Amino acid sequence: MTKIATIGCGLIGQGWATVFAQAGFDVAMYDASAEAAERAFKAMEKRVSDLVEFDLLAASDAPAVMRRITVAPSLEDALKGAVYIQESGPERLDVKRDITETLDAIAAPDVPIGSSTSGISASRYCKDIAGRHRCLVVHPINPPHLIPAVEIVPTPWTDPEIVSKVTDLMRASHRETIVLNQEIDGFVVNRLQGALLEEAFKLVGSGIVSAADLDKAICDGLGLRWSFMGPMQTIHLNAPEGVAQYVERYGNMYRGFGIGPYETINWADIVESGLRAECEERVPVAEIPAAQADRDRKLMALLRHKAQMRADGPSDPNTKQE
Amino acid sequence: MTKIATIGCGLIGQGWATVFAQAGFDVAMYDASAEAAERAFKAMEKRVSDLVEFDLLAASDAPAVMRRITVAPSLEDALKGAVYIQESGPERLDVKRDITETLDAIAAPDVPIGSSTSGISASRYCKDIAGRHRCLVVHPINPPHLIPAVEIVPTPWTDPEIVSKVTDLMRASHRETIVLNQEIDGFVVNRLQGALLEEAFKLVGSGIVSAADLDKAICDGLGLRWSFMGPMQTIHLNAPEGVAQYVERYGNMYRGFGIGPYETINWADIVESGLRAECEERVPVAEIPAAQADRDRKLMALLRHKAQMRADGPSDPNTKQE
Repeated sequence: MTKIATIGCGLIGQGWATVFAQAGFDVAMYDASAEAAERAFKAMEKRVSDLVEFDLLAASDAPAVMRRITVAPSLEDALKGAVYIQESGPERLDVKRDITETLDAIAAPDVPIGSSTSGISASRYCKDIAGRHRCLVVHPINPPHLIPAVEIVPTPWTDPEIVSKVTDLMRASHRETIVLNQEIDGFVVNRLQGALLEEAFKLVGSGIVSAADLDKAICDGLGLRWSFMGPMQTIHLNAPEGVAQYVERYGNMYRGFGIGPYETINWADIVESGLRAECEERVPVAEIPAAQADRDRKLMALLRHKAQMRADGPSDPNTKQE
Repeated sequence: MTKIATIGCGLIGQGWATVFAQAGFDVAMYDASAEAAERAFKAMEKRVSDLVEFDLLAASDAPAVMRRITVAPSLEDALKGAVYIQESGPERLDVKRDITETLDAIAAPDVPIGSSTSGISASRYCKDIAGRHRCLVVHPINPPHLIPAVEIVPTPWTDPEIVSKVTDLMRASHRETIVLNQEIDGFVVNRLQGALLEEAFKLVGSGIVSAADLDKAICDGLGLRWSFMGPMQTIHLNAPEGVAQYVERYGNMYRGFGIGPYETINWADIVESGLRAECEERVPVAEIPAAQADRDRKLMALLRHKAQMRADGPSDPNTKQE
């Protein structure tokens, strides 16, 4: 069996342990507080039984998943024989620097050290660490065992072999990998969320719409498609000739809204310098009608699913306590 | 039976006819081109049978839904006895002005005239129309019969009685209403989409991430939660004490990304001037843990649904042609 070390036993560390154990890895959990590690280990049962309840894990596999997870008595024990280290410590630059330095000193050479940080680019804390070539950010979305997307963000010094080793390992762990070609604050997920929130705060703050109604624009509108199709694929399918035509038709409309620094971001230029080619490789223009039909079938299946969820019982936290 | 007139028989007009007929209204479809109207009417069968296939309409109700829809031989016939008019004509200011003027001249007094326009505020074309008090935007998301969200946007002259009549009628048609308190270009849905796209184009255009990987940040990440919970509710549940604490903890991080005109939009001020109160009315702080548990159950049910969809057959348009 192949072993992974998860360092830090908060909710993120616990989620990672579940992910790796479910994928068949042995997992050694470690926390500077032995008590925290034991508490985390106990919380794992509930997580695994939830997965079984929702058919995300076969009941017959649950005991094996639990058996693969252990709490390591020391950091040395946790790292011994591990092929990958996932660090999920506190979100503080000095803590990240110290813990990464320690991990680098103990771990076998060329074992990647991925950090779960959502906000700190790894170059900020690993610049002066001997093994900085094996450091990078591997950022999950909370809760990690339920949301498949993972951002992989190399520093300028990260060895490309390390990036590809981590990417393979994440795919083997059934993660959907978002690989960044360079560091940027907030990475991709939180930048997209931040852009949407910025506009949302503006609309709510100016009294144009209530937060409850604004939420409907997403959960009863855009978010339905977005649960199975990203924003770029969405616009590629929203014009008969694909993304270039979409930007030609609607680019000026969006520009008219006055959102963002349009002077430096020209959608049409970006389309022609690679985006069109990539979108058409994913769905050639001739296949857009079939892809649209498929999208609408997925949408109907999602609506059926949501209707069934409502029929199964109220989801209002005032009436449902589980 | 209560009658609604749908004017313009493109895809949007057809979607509206399906919505209203399914809700039990008689629907008179009209298009300046009689041929287009007949084509649209024939296309309706497929839409209704799709709804039946996905359990969104009982098979036994389908014939009645179809019977409620007729093609009106003239505009006068379409409007006669209608309690509401949904106009889905071409997206051109001059066309909107002409058609609205004509509708206003023929329709009975105080029958609301809603426009499906996605980009033109109604005040731009109805200012000089006698019945401007009954004009407003009622904007669906495409396809209207599958996406429940509808934006209701009054002009400065729209009678509040008209707004509330239309809101009631949309709710009776099983729509999720987003009521704007004043006009703004792009309304809410497309402004939120535009803000996210602006950041997406920036990230893809600067070579930081491929469009395919960026899409995963949404369809395997943020979009999962967003399919059943809007962005404001999402952040309210992402800190133990709710939205105010979320902004306190993460506001500076988002600000550091350099997205949007932060100097004029202060998240913390917006929280204290009403957003916190609204969010806590929806989910009091004490009930956040239960709401989080409910969210995670919905997330697991969604993951099960997506896994079943994949198991049911490939969705790649290259291999699936239906």
